[in-house]
Amino acid sequence: MLYGTPMRALWLESGTLRTRTEAARPEPAPGEALVRVRLAGVCQTDLELVRGYYSFTGIPGHEFVGVVEAAAGATAWVGRRVCGEINAVCGACAECQDGRPSHCARRTVLGIRNRHGAFAEYLTLPMANLHAVPDTVPDEAAVFTEPLAAALRVQEQADVGPGRRVLVVGAGRLGQLLARTLARTGCELRVVARQDRARRLLGDVGVTAIGPGEVPERWADVVVECTGDPEGLARGRRAVRPRGTIVLKSTYRGQATLDLSPLVVDEVSLVGSRCGPFAPALRLLAGGLDPAPLVDARYRLEEGVAAFAHAERPGALKVLISP
Amino acid sequence: MLYGTPMRALWLESGTLRTRTEAARPEPAPGEALVRVRLAGVCQTDLELVRGYYSFTGIPGHEFVGVVEAAAGATAWVGRRVCGEINAVCGACAECQDGRPSHCARRTVLGIRNRHGAFAEYLTLPMANLHAVPDTVPDEAAVFTEPLAAALRVQEQADVGPGRRVLVVGAGRLGQLLARTLARTGCELRVVARQDRARRLLGDVGVTAIGPGEVPERWADVVVECTGDPEGLARGRRAVRPRGTIVLKSTYRGQATLDLSPLVVDEVSLVGSRCGPFAPALRLLAGGLDPAPLVDARYRLEEGVAAFAHAERPGALKVLISP
Repeated sequence: MLYGTPMRALWLESGTLRTRTEAARPEPAPGEALVRVRLAGVCQTDLELVRGYYSFTGIPGHEFVGVVEAAAGATAWVGRRVCGEINAVCGACAECQDGRPSHCARRTVLGIRNRHGAFAEYLTLPMANLHAVPDTVPDEAAVFTEPLAAALRVQEQADVGPGRRVLVVGAGRLGQLLARTLARTGCELRVVARQDRARRLLGDVGVTAIGPGEVPERWADVVVECTGDPEGLARGRRAVRPRGTIVLKSTYRGQATLDLSPLVVDEVSLVGSRCGPFAPALRLLAGGLDPAPLVDARYRLEEGVAAFAHAERPGALKVLISP
Repeated sequence: MLYGTPMRALWLESGTLRTRTEAARPEPAPGEALVRVRLAGVCQTDLELVRGYYSFTGIPGHEFVGVVEAAAGATAWVGRRVCGEINAVCGACAECQDGRPSHCARRTVLGIRNRHGAFAEYLTLPMANLHAVPDTVPDEAAVFTEPLAAALRVQEQADVGPGRRVLVVGAGRLGQLLARTLARTGCELRVVARQDRARRLLGDVGVTAIGPGEVPERWADVVVECTGDPEGLARGRRAVRPRGTIVLKSTYRGQATLDLSPLVVDEVSLVGSRCGPFAPALRLLAGGLDPAPLVDARYRLEEGVAAFAHAERPGALKVLISP
């Protein structure tokens, strides 16, 4: 294994994304595996990295499926097809010790914070982060494991079972996955969708789409906000019942202004939501949850800049990049 | 009983508070009791009503202890010393039917919304709202039942038991009660207090007071914000750990600006909190929780305007008004 040898990758620096052919192949630290990327997905966070909402220099990308090329001391991993949790953690800080490793104070995050990501030929991750992908799950589905896990995180944080009314605001990349996971809980689900295609995709899986003007007031036990837009949040605010919960599934650009007094009077909860559990996501994919209709396009690594431009188009869903 | 006969009361109209000697004695609707007020307390919400943050015309006041003068069809109540829950509800709307009567869509609220309040010789409330005050609890303690219940609401909403780290931001009227209730759960408690007197009062009940500059970062499992000040909220935000909870116990003047992205990344919960359970509050008062040191002054109804001015002074704690 020739670490440091050149590889192809997308490279983000000072807000500019470009293709490099001479990026250094990453070297796995002790306990880490080297993974050859087979397919990676472009996520809203990647677009926000390029816009400079977070400070990051290097290879972006955190949704992937790949094959383990090297795993020192753990040869059983070698050759296995895997996806991987994106937070590489220290195991020693207060957060890790208290059972919240995804909030590790010293974490690196694949393609987001101090760790090169998946828009490349190779990446490294701790072996503890890897999950074997069942043979029945094709790459095009396995690449959705990370965002699907993020959607399932909502179910760890809010009661969304049968008899509950749930509103998803936003029917983009994440909203479509949320709709597909929440629909399986038996809850009464409505999804706010503007675009015809988004509405059609929801209809195809039996989910009720409503227009932004059709949001019922004080209706929802749980609102999941995934537009990243203060207007979407305001819409969710009006839709939630007293003592209901609004799950914030998107980051927001800059400061959002919020009238807190009605939240207090109505005893509403606002809950931030980030990474979720991979094992159940893989179970759903193996069990037939099919994200294929959400794939818009597939690009080669060399076309990565075009892939990002595609993902930026209004209404664009998942754009995949294969090395 | 001569309903409509004149009585003395404080009267709020167009942001001006004055004493009236010819306010109409309220007439109890079916199911309601007429209560002769013995003592009432001035709360932050009363001050905000005068400032015009809510639209209200009439008699303010919602913290009281009194004696039932009339209770049609329920003579057992007559002559009993009572305090009362402040939300008078319809019992029929979705909120009532779903077990959230304090969020009744058609509620009136004593001295706050469409119902004359406690700064008067008499008030009316549904008999269902009344709680008998144990003989061992003097008026000066019983008048704290409502705000003490509001403090206990936090314990219904957040896990604040032994082994948990809890920070209260603000050591005013409500913060002092929160400190006294939370200290009894066995949690590790710190209270942010600016004023020497507030710190001394906390020390008297064995609670650790800290200065605004001493707030530990990412320390608290639960933060209770009761300053009503965006700066207090920002302080609480810094103090809460990832996946921790911030309970908003105060209303906020106008819009508050909040950077939501860190809430999402840290998966923090913001929870609004309003009215709480009276029965446990009365149990604590009967069991020895003594709010007497929090009483600043006692005024006659005729001196009500001066009482409000006193309650507005920086660092002022509870001001009582007796008819």
